[in-house]
Formats: sequence, C-alpha cells, structure tokens
Amino acid sequence: MEFKATDIALFLNGEVIGNNDVKVSGISKIEEGKPGTLSFLANPKYEHFIYNTDSSIVLVNRTFKPRAEIKTTLIKVEDAYQAFASLLDLYVQTKQNTRKGIESPVSIDETASIGEDVYIGAFTSIGKNAKVGNTTKLFPQVFIGDNVTVGENCILYAGVKIYDDCVIGNNCILHSGVVIGSDGFGFAPQADGTYKKIHQVGNAILEDDVEIGANTVVDCGTFGSTIVRKGAKIDNLVQVAHNCEVGENTVIAGQSGMAGSTKIGKNCRFAGQVGLAGHLTIGDHVQIGAQSGVAKSVKDNEIILSTPAINYKDAVKTYAIIKNLPKLRNEFLQLQKDVESLKQAKEAGSK
Amino acid sequence: MEFKATDIALFLNGEVIGNNDVKVSGISKIEEGKPGTLSFLANPKYEHFIYNTDSSIVLVNRTFKPRAEIKTTLIKVEDAYQAFASLLDLYVQTKQNTRKGIESPVSIDETASIGEDVYIGAFTSIGKNAKVGNTTKLFPQVFIGDNVTVGENCILYAGVKIYDDCVIGNNCILHSGVVIGSDGFGFAPQADGTYKKIHQVGNAILEDDVEIGANTVVDCGTFGSTIVRKGAKIDNLVQVAHNCEVGENTVIAGQSGMAGSTKIGKNCRFAGQVGLAGHLTIGDHVQIGAQSGVAKSVKDNEIILSTPAINYKDAVKTYAIIKNLPKLRNEFLQLQKDVESLKQAKEAGSK
Amino acid sequence: MEFKATDIALFLNGEVIGNNDVKVSGISKIEEGKPGTLSFLANPKYEHFIYNTDSSIVLVNRTFKPRAEIKTTLIKVEDAYQAFASLLDLYVQTKQNTRKGIESPVSIDETASIGEDVYIGAFTSIGKNAKVGNTTKLFPQVFIGDNVTVGENCILYAGVKIYDDCVIGNNCILHSGVVIGSDGFGFAPQADGTYKKIHQVGNAILEDDVEIGANTVVDCGTFGSTIVRKGAKIDNLVQVAHNCEVGENTVIAGQSGMAGSTKIGKNCRFAGQVGLAGHLTIGDHVQIGAQSGVAKSVKDNEIILSTPAINYKDAVKTYAIIKNLPKLRNEFLQLQKDVESLKQAKEAGSK
Repeated sequence: MEFKATDIALFLNGEVIGNNDVKVSGISKIEEGKPGTLSFLANPKYEHFIYNTDSSIVLVNRTFKPRAEIKTTLIKVEDAYQAFASLLDLYVQTKQNTRKGIESPVSIDETASIGEDVYIGAFTSIGKNAKVGNTTKLFPQVFIGDNVTVGENCILYAGVKIYDDCVIGNNCILHSGVVIGSDGFGFAPQADGTYKKIHQVGNAILEDDVEIGANTVVDCGTFGSTIVRKGAKIDNLVQVAHNCEVGENTVIAGQSGMAGSTKIGKNCRFAGQVGLAGHLTIGDHVQIGAQSGVAKSVKDNEIILSTPAINYKDAVKTYAIIKNLPKLRNEFLQLQKDVESLKQAKEAGSK
Repeated sequence: MEFKATDIALFLNGEVIGNNDVKVSGISKIEEGKPGTLSFLANPKYEHFIYNTDSSIVLVNRTFKPRAEIKTTLIKVEDAYQAFASLLDLYVQTKQNTRKGIESPVSIDETASIGEDVYIGAFTSIGKNAKVGNTTKLFPQVFIGDNVTVGENCILYAGVKIYDDCVIGNNCILHSGVVIGSDGFGFAPQADGTYKKIHQVGNAILEDDVEIGANTVVDCGTFGSTIVRKGAKIDNLVQVAHNCEVGENTVIAGQSGMAGSTKIGKNCRFAGQVGLAGHLTIGDHVQIGAQSGVAKSVKDNEIILSTPAINYKDAVKTYAIIKNLPKLRNEFLQLQKDVESLKQAKEAGSK
Repeated sequence: MEFKATDIALFLNGEVIGNNDVKVSGISKIEEGKPGTLSFLANPKYEHFIYNTDSSIVLVNRTFKPRAEIKTTLIKVEDAYQAFASLLDLYVQTKQNTRKGIESPVSIDETASIGEDVYIGAFTSIGKNAKVGNTTKLFPQVFIGDNVTVGENCILYAGVKIYDDCVIGNNCILHSGVVIGSDGFGFAPQADGTYKKIHQVGNAILEDDVEIGANTVVDCGTFGSTIVRKGAKIDNLVQVAHNCEVGENTVIAGQSGMAGSTKIGKNCRFAGQVGLAGHLTIGDHVQIGAQSGVAKSVKDNEIILSTPAINYKDAVKTYAIIKNLPKLRNEFLQLQKDVESLKQAKEAGSK
C-alpha cells in the first residue's frame, strides 16, 4: 500500500508543505527515517532530527516553526501525535482489509457454517460442524477441527491448529503455530513399567478478546475444559496444560508454562520463563518475576520471585546475600578462627 | 456425534430410568454437569450432586437408591465406573473412526507406499519412497519427507513435520506442530569469527508407542540417529537435540530440553522446564524436579533437583536455608559483634 | 539415493577392494556400521572395528594394511577423512538437488516475483509483491506474507511462516515451524483492568547467512525492525521479542529467550534456556551459561552465569558454597553455642 502526501493531508485535515505527490508505504521513527516512510515530530527534544531525516513525510504540529532548511515534506496538523495514532489505526485496518474472500484451494466440510465477510486463506481445512463467525480471518494453512466454534472478528494467522470441539470467542488473535486443544499429558503407569494413555476427551475454550502468541500450546482438558478467560494475553512459546484456567485480563510473557489443573486469577502479570506446578490456585492481581518456579498456591495481590518463589522483596534481599556468599563465607571462616583462639585462651587462662 | 439413552443402555446392558430419547454428545463431571452431556456417579461422596446436575444422563450403579427427586435421566448398570470407562473407549474410537480415506488435494509422490485403511487429510505432502503403515492417520497439512517410514496405527495431527529419512514406529501419536529430524545445532567456528555449518546427515528414530506433545522438536543426528525409545512420552515444547537418546518408558514434561548427545535411561521421569547439558549419561529410573539444571551424569534411581542439580533431599534442605538467609545473615552479624567484644574484653583483661 | 562402490571410487579417485557392485544409500560410524551404509577409517584407534563392521563400504587410506580378514568392501584413497568430507558435501548437495521445480498446487499471488531455479513445495502460499530469490527452496506448506523478500539460495523447510513485510537475506536456513514477524507482545493497560492492543507495525529482518532452528519465533518490531544480523545462528524454540537485535555471528542455543528491545552484540555465545530481560545492551563476545537469567546490561567479553547472572567464576564459587550450605549452617549453629558459652564464662569470670 502506498499513500500520497495530499491524500494523507486530506484524511488528517492537514496542510502539505513540500511535495504533494510524494508517496509513503511504511512508518519509521524520525531518528531512523527511511525514504518511502512517514514519521512524526511531537516531542521538541527530537526536533533536531527533522533537519536530516530521510523520511519522505513528517507530521508536525501546526505551530511548528523550522529553524533551518528542511528537505523532507511536512504535513502540518493540529496534534501530530494524535494524527499519527489515527493514521496507524487506519494503516492496520486497511492492511487487514486486503485479505478477504475465500482463496483456492481450501477444504471446508459441507456441514461447516461460515459467516459473512470472512477471509479464508489457501490450504486451510475446516472440519465437520465447525462454525466460523462473521468477519473472521483464517490465514493460509489453518486447521479447524470438527465441531470447533470460532467467533466473530477473529484473526487466526497462518498455520494455527485448533483440535476438535474447541471454542474460540470473539475478537481473538491467534498467531502462527499456535496449537489449541492438543491432548493433555496424562498416562497411567502400569505394573510392567509402561504407560497407558489416559484419554483426553475435554476441550479448550478461549473467551472473547484473547490474544495468543506464536507457537504457544493450550492443551484440552482431560475431562471438562481448559479455559483462557476474557481479555487474557499470552505471549509466544507458552505451555498451558490440561484443565488449567487463565483468568480475565491476565498477561503471561514468553516461554512460561504451567502444569495441569492450575487456576490463575484475574489481572495477573507473569514475566518470561516462569514455571508453575500443577493443581495450584493463583489469586487475582498476582505478579511473578522472570524464571520463577512456583510450587505453592499464591494469594491475591502477592508479588513473588525466585525458585522456589517467595515474596519479591525477600527474594531481592536473598539474591544480594547469595551474591556475597563467598565474602560471607570467608568472614565466617575468620570468625571460626577467632572463636577458636578465644576458646584456647580461656582454657589456657583457666589452667 | 450424538447418542440416545436407549442406545447407550443397550451397549452397557443397562436400564433407562427417565427419558429414553434424550441425547448426549459429550461428557462432563457430575459436579459440572451440562445439558447434552453424560456423567457418572460411582463415589457416594458425590451423590448430592445428582439431585441438581444439569447432565442429561447419569450412569449409576444398579444398587443406587435416590433419596430425593431426580430430574435427569439415569442409566442403571452393574458398575458405573467401569461402564463409564468402556463408554470412553468407545467414544474415542468412534471419534477417531470419523477420519478415514484420503481427502483432496494431497500431494503423494508416486514412489510412496501407503498402507490400508489410512486417513490422509487435505494438504498433506508425502515424499519420495516414503512409507505409511496400515490404519495410520495423517491429519491435514502434515509433511512427510523423502524416505520416511511411518509405522502402523499412528496418529500425526495437523501440521506435524517429518524431515527426510526419519523413522516413526507403530502406535505413535505426534501432536500438532511437532518437528522430527530438523538439523542439529552444529557449527564450526572459523578464524574470521563466522561459523561454517556442519552437515547434519543423520536421522531421528521414534520406536513404537511413543507420544510427542505439540510443538516439540526432535533434531536428527549429526551423523547416526537421535532415538526416542519404545513407550517414551514427551510433552509439549520440549527440545531433544542431535544424537540424544530418550530411554524406554521415560516421561519428559513440558518445556524441558537437552543438549546434544545426552543419553537418558529407561523409566525416568522429568518434570517441566528441566535442562540437561550435552554428552551426559542419565541412568534408569532417574527423577528430576522442575526447572532443574543438570550439568553432570546421573546414576540409576537418583532423585535430583535444583540448579546445578543435587540430591533431592539436600536440595530441599538447601532451599530452606536459602529462604532463611536474611535471618541467618543478621545472626551472623550479631555473632561477629559478640566475638569482637569478647576479643576486646580479652585484650583488656590481658593488659 | 544409492551409490555403487565403483562410482564412489571413480569420484574419489580411489580403488575398490572387494565387491564393485555393492550399493550404499547412507552413512554410518564404523563402530555402528549398518548394511547399505558407508563408513571411513582414518584414526588407527578405530582399526579393530573394521574387521567386524556391518558397513557395506569403508573408505581407508591407501597405506592401510589389514591385519586380518575383512568381509566389507574397501575403497582405498589418499586421505580417508578428506575423501569422506568431500563425499558428505556431495551427498548433501545431491540430496538438496532432488527438490526442484514448483509442485502443485501452490498459491502464488500474481504480483509476486519468483527467481530462477527455485523449489516451491505443494501447499505453499506466497503473498502480494513478495520476492523469492534465485535457487531458494520453499518446502511444502510454507507461508510467505505480502511484501516479504526472501533472498537467494535460502532453504525454508516445511511449514515456515513469514508475516507481511519481513526481509530474509541470502543463504538463510529456516527450519520447520519457524515464525518470523509475528506481533510483538505489547498491550496498554486500561483503567478498567483490560488491555488495549498496541499495533505492531514494524517488521523482522534476517540478514545473510542466518540459520534459525525449528519452532523458534522472531517477533516483528512494534515500530521499526527486529534484526538478526549476518551469520547469527539460533537454535530451536527460542524467543526473539520485538525490536531485539541479535549481533553478527552470535550463537544462541535452544529454548533461550529475550524480552523486547534487547540488543545483543557480535560473536556472543548463549547456552540453552537463557533468559534476558528487555531493554538490555549485551556487548560483543559475551558468553552466557545455561539457564542464566540476565537482568542487567553486560559489557564486551564478559562470561556470566546463574540467576541473576554474575561473573562465571564467582558463580561457580557461589554454587559450591550453596551446595555446602547445610554443613555451613551446622557449623554456624555450633559457633553460636561456642560464643554463647564463652560469653557465659566471661560473665561468670567477671562476677
């Protein structure tokens, strides 16, 4: 997509100073400006960049008065930051709207129900009795199993896989490589040392407004459902095991994982590479620091860190002591000697 | 799939009490019962749920005598738990049997050999001289490289990728996004700071009865094979590097990883997010706690934990001390003061 | 592919001793030799294996004199190790050359530009204005978004997904399940506890000679680019967040991850499962030990380990002390008692 300076000015109710016909197809920071892109200048601290930027167009406040020659084209608007934000919304919307209709070939079971104004990319497979809501976009190579429901206005990027019977709410975004509803990890040990598979007959449910990062896995419930509640945001390469529950508006960063049946409350924030044991209850508004290992349930509002995870402040104190352990140990060895000589002096004195 | 109460009763040799025609299409716990699902009541502790459950059908023991009115339909059977287990087996079998035949389009090389009664989903690609055994199911968008052998009665879910020359045994289950046989991570450092790729010409072999979780990766051998032995079960997002060996009936939980050439014995159990260095030998029946980092070889039957991993009991003791380090340090500082005043007293005394 | 002993001898300018017509289709170590494979003997320490190996052909130095009967076929060459290495190069080249042309069906937008001598596997989708360079191989089920550029001589294995606007340099290798350019993890917290998505309008750029392991994710920049510099090698299941930069010839092992906007210098080496916080600057030639957690920026040439990561030598010292903490604590308790009795003795003495 390319946009001409005059068209952008028209949309923003702004005024072009420079080349009316220059075109841009992307966005860049003013300090890293590239030809063919648009930048904005709102913060006066960045003003000096405008005199040398390679951006083809820069949005500026109507009040902006250059103090030197400017080679780029300016568009003067009431509020350059707000104007930029609305351009960004338009840009993303326009971009997404270039994907529409049903490409060929696709494999859609005749019993599936497909909403209005959807996009279905080539090589996508949709199973029996599956439902895809209005305006939802399924990129190429998506797999939608039997009896799956995908709500309205969702985006499933290339290669997302949804197992049979799962439910995806409205306005969900699933990135490439996401797997929803794969079997939980359940095996019954047998007397001869082998394991017998425990059938995983539940499903996974994502409520509305959930976003899930690339290559993250949400297993199905062994029985019943694994649930990601409304508004939860999960980053890349995360593992959500069978029968877990991720609470409303909870945010989980990359490569974190939780074992089976752990329930996480609302509005929690987990940093990257956190691990949670199974069958825990994590309260609301809990924050967990990066790489922490959580082996016990956690109450509302706690902030925890470390392995095994403890209160954040205690963990920071402990980290500081651990860092000084070699020094502390030397002092301890010295103290042992001191005490030894005091003891010997005492014995000598008492003779 | 829907099943009518009378049909279920017939299959279980049971008796319907209530609505003969009510249909169910799923399963739920009696305490979370939903309309259109079947539950069972075996444990008397759960009896109170039966009077209010929304499950459409509940299996009960023939000896069950309700103590109040029940609105749901009952099926009385000899042993409700056993009956439920056999229904579950039937359910899973029936479900899997809905996938059969070869969908269209697929890309199967003319030199590939495909067994009887297979399922091959749309957009699956099968390479030169590949072999797929009888009754194996390849879901949509699976990639089977050249010279790959997939045994009988396997399930490869949507989007599994098998590189050239790999071997998958019988009765294996590979979940979506699994990659088998990708290049090992081997590069020879050059004098100019760049790296030269070391060709990875081995393969990966999964023996019979192996199950591998979603988005897990098993690299090929640099030379020779990476091997996952009979009956091993590997969870989601695990990394098995080049030339590793995972022993018979060993179970590895999510997000664990091992570096190249590490050999793991039989019947081991690793919790989640465990890391193992390369070139280690891990004995049989070894257990490793979550997030442990293993830098040395481990003997048979050991139970280890922590980073660097040590004996489990010692690790638990150490964790307890670390948790108390701030207190211990304060006591230490006090002790230093005490010794200092003893020393001063001694010096004063000796004057 | 099968090769006959005489053909191999011809290529290597060697001499067959044994069966001219025996064929091999693979390679094995002499100590693990299998029928139908070729091995080499260069190191005299391994000589005893040649008398019993099941390899069909063994390359040996021209000077090799057997001390017993040999059942396998030998090919005598000037330098068995060099001969083997050149066979390996040939093997890999030949193997890759079996994939050529454009399979069917594929989905290539009419505005895409495809180079000469490419391989495009079945079910691959190439978007608007995308460019694919000469001799590049796109395996089946690859997704190339709109405006993506893939350079020359690249290999994108089955199921690689490249989001719109990303740039892949020349000679890059991307393994199955790799996702390039997925949205960065950015959400603005709202007053009501929900999160508003921050549009991710940047891209991801891989420079030349980059290799990326299976199921690794490189997010796009929120704004601007996420960059993996020339010659960097990234293993499986790694997370590279939005706006990160991985320096030239830097090597990152499996399951490591970094949060947004962290910049990593040249020629660094990270072991497995390392985590880096966001907005850090990691210098050149930095080495980080396995499972380390890095919360602060790191200068050139540092070697660090542990969580939080500290200098490697200090970390090893600290690990040793931690391992001995139970013993140290007991000694401390003893010392407390000793000091207590010294204090009591002093008080008794001073009475």
